Amino acid sequence: MEFKVELKRRQTDAEKIIYSFLPAEEGLQKTIFSAMNYSVKAPGKRLRPILMRETFLMFGGQDEVVLHHFMAALEFIHTYSLVHDDLPAMDNDDYRRGRETTHKVYGEAMGILAGDALLHHAFDTAAASFAVPGANPALIGRALKILTEKSGINGMVGGQVVDVEMEGKPLNAQQLDFIYRLKTAALLECAMMIGAVLAGAENEDVLKIEGIAGKVGIAFQIQDDILDQISTTEELGKPVGSDEKNHKMTYVVLNGLPQSEEAVKQMSEEAVADLDSFANEHGFLKELILSLIHRRK
Amino acid sequence: MEFKVELKRRQTDAEKIIYSFLPAEEGLQKTIFSAMNYSVKAPGKRLRPILMRETFLMFGGQDEVVLHHFMAALEFIHTYSLVHDDLPAMDNDDYRRGRETTHKVYGEAMGILAGDALLHHAFDTAAASFAVPGANPALIGRALKILTEKSGINGMVGGQVVDVEMEGKPLNAQQLDFIYRLKTAALLECAMMIGAVLAGAENEDVLKIEGIAGKVGIAFQIQDDILDQISTTEELGKPVGSDEKNHKMTYVVLNGLPQSEEAVKQMSEEAVADLDSFANEHGFLKELILSLIHRRK
Repeated sequence: MEFKVELKRRQTDAEKIIYSFLPAEEGLQKTIFSAMNYSVKAPGKRLRPILMRETFLMFGGQDEVVLHHFMAALEFIHTYSLVHDDLPAMDNDDYRRGRETTHKVYGEAMGILAGDALLHHAFDTAAASFAVPGANPALIGRALKILTEKSGINGMVGGQVVDVEMEGKPLNAQQLDFIYRLKTAALLECAMMIGAVLAGAENEDVLKIEGIAGKVGIAFQIQDDILDQISTTEELGKPVGSDEKNHKMTYVVLNGLPQSEEAVKQMSEEAVADLDSFANEHGFLKELILSLIHRRK
Repeated sequence: MEFKVELKRRQTDAEKIIYSFLPAEEGLQKTIFSAMNYSVKAPGKRLRPILMRETFLMFGGQDEVVLHHFMAALEFIHTYSLVHDDLPAMDNDDYRRGRETTHKVYGEAMGILAGDALLHHAFDTAAASFAVPGANPALIGRALKILTEKSGINGMVGGQVVDVEMEGKPLNAQQLDFIYRLKTAALLECAMMIGAVLAGAENEDVLKIEGIAGKVGIAFQIQDDILDQISTTEELGKPVGSDEKNHKMTYVVLNGLPQSEEAVKQMSEEAVADLDSFANEHGFLKELILSLIHRRK
């Protein structure tokens, strides 16, 4: 119970930060600003910005102003990827997080453009941190490179592409692992690495954090597949069984439910053990990672 | 004739630079890498990277390594905007620059993703310049902010949104000017400003360059509208009269051909006069700007 309250508080904090970087719904671009805000304000776990901030705090980060820019930027990137993923030419989903998807509300052209606009706005929000008084441009440069790399063609969007292209085709374990590493793990690595970098962590520690986040990411994606198969639409807020409907090869399809649940458990525990090797205080971060294997949506 | 040879040489140089930042067509993401390369390698004027480099040279810029990253980044952004603009849900164009559009060759899903991938890759290419030996992170930070801002929701993509939304609706001169400033002028401002910034130009001069590029941008867009009305498909490499077909309100529709041609001439001349107020050598830049009013494609 204590954890749930703590998590809720952090989600509220993260949303306050993220929303502060959204555009005001005025001017000639009003419609697209509204579509961007609609997309970002859909109920979400805010897992990536929370992971970023908790890692920042774990490494003794103090001044949060630059961090806030990157928290918002990462959530905008995550959101844009969902908006484009839902498009008719892609997964063609009408519901997401219990609400109509962006293109259902604003039309297909605006769905494409709202995603584009969010991606632009993500990098603009991150780049705006150079102007924060006292900001360290070299540190921001490192954080920005992590953001562009982990979300890019050898990260999230690369995984998304392979995922779409492989739909309906048989995949071996290695190919599936490749997709999961890029499509899902990359953005969690991005979150935790940027948190560490902005707190001034040593390079060696940033790489260790990357490894931990990678394991969390894979566990998180397998849990997603499990939920797609076992949840009800009401619990999940989107149609269940959509992977099967779309002939998607997932870890669950390849290995069955019991082995999938075991894999989630094992990888989460490994990640936590690696985390525990740090002397730094990380109580909430640990609970958060463990909670991912019990989540129901 | 001399100018055409000089321009051709610069285009060849720019393409060599831009292509060097494209991904190798290998690995599981091969299809998307191929779609990205197909899109970028379509014949183009390479106007933006050339303007960037010429402005850099005009301000005495020496070390070109960081500049090359930004030349490629800007051309990737320009290309992504064309790829998404051509999509069925947008302008629904089958031909661009004399070749089939990206989504016609690779399908609609890959068309969306190739555009996304190019936008990601643009910012990743720019951010990679932080790692160039001897690079100045503060200067790169300024250039990056210009890149994200001028291409973003208050720049290119913002203009694109308003353009799409206003289709078929009456526009007054002020609204049309707003769209042209964002949709077209913003990226030319971006090109010339980044060239100046990376060469170490004073803030005051960067702002003056922004004003010049803005005028060039508006002139360039009106000339585009003129060509859409008066060229043949063969000359232009894409269907002509598409503005009329799409019920697009343009400067030409609003003001007629003679006034439009006069506006292009006047704005180009103003831009050149402003440029001539700089003592710095800018012979080719001047010719380039003047050539824009005579272009036939």
